[in-house]
Amino acid sequence: MARVVVDVMLKPEILDPQGKAVHGALPRLGFDGVTGVRQGKRFELEVDGELTAERLAEVRTIAETLLSNPVIEDFAVRVDEAGGAA
Amino acid sequence: MARVVVDVMLKPEILDPQGKAVHGALPRLGFDGVTGVRQGKRFELEVDGELTAERLAEVRTIAETLLSNPVIEDFAVRVDEAGGAA
Repeated sequence: MARVVVDVMLKPEILDPQGKAVHGALPRLGFDGVTGVRQGKRFELEVDGELTAERLAEVRTIAETLLSNPVIEDFAVRVDEAGGAA
Repeated sequence: MARVVVDVMLKPEILDPQGKAVHGALPRLGFDGVTGVRQGKRFELEVDGELTAERLAEVRTIAETLLSNPVIEDFAVRVDEAGGAA
């Protein structure tokens, strides 16, 4: 059992209204010093059995076809050793 | 200028319908071997100036109060050296 993390973010040239909303809220909450916020998606996939190069290639295909829209989004696939958000 | 990444995921005991939907779509698209999918959020914060311990503590507070709901979500804050999804 292995965990693979897929991060999906809007490409830098694509407007990100969610990130802009978060960024706009920060000064109102008393936080300054943050010059930009981008919001994206994070997927954690539990892969059965050993994580072979073939399996990882399959996850890349999943990321490209189902989890992201390659026209407006970039994605990154990486194996999670630690256990993620906790 | 430093980039800090905040990962927000639903706690393991909280039902994740988005992740379930993705998981359900995989066999239909011809992918097997993935036993579970969880979907969460990823925030990239650009922090002005040097990233001091104080600044990082502020980002943790932002993550706790604005970016996540600690009742149902876990978050992780880390400094991004590489540049993220690309």
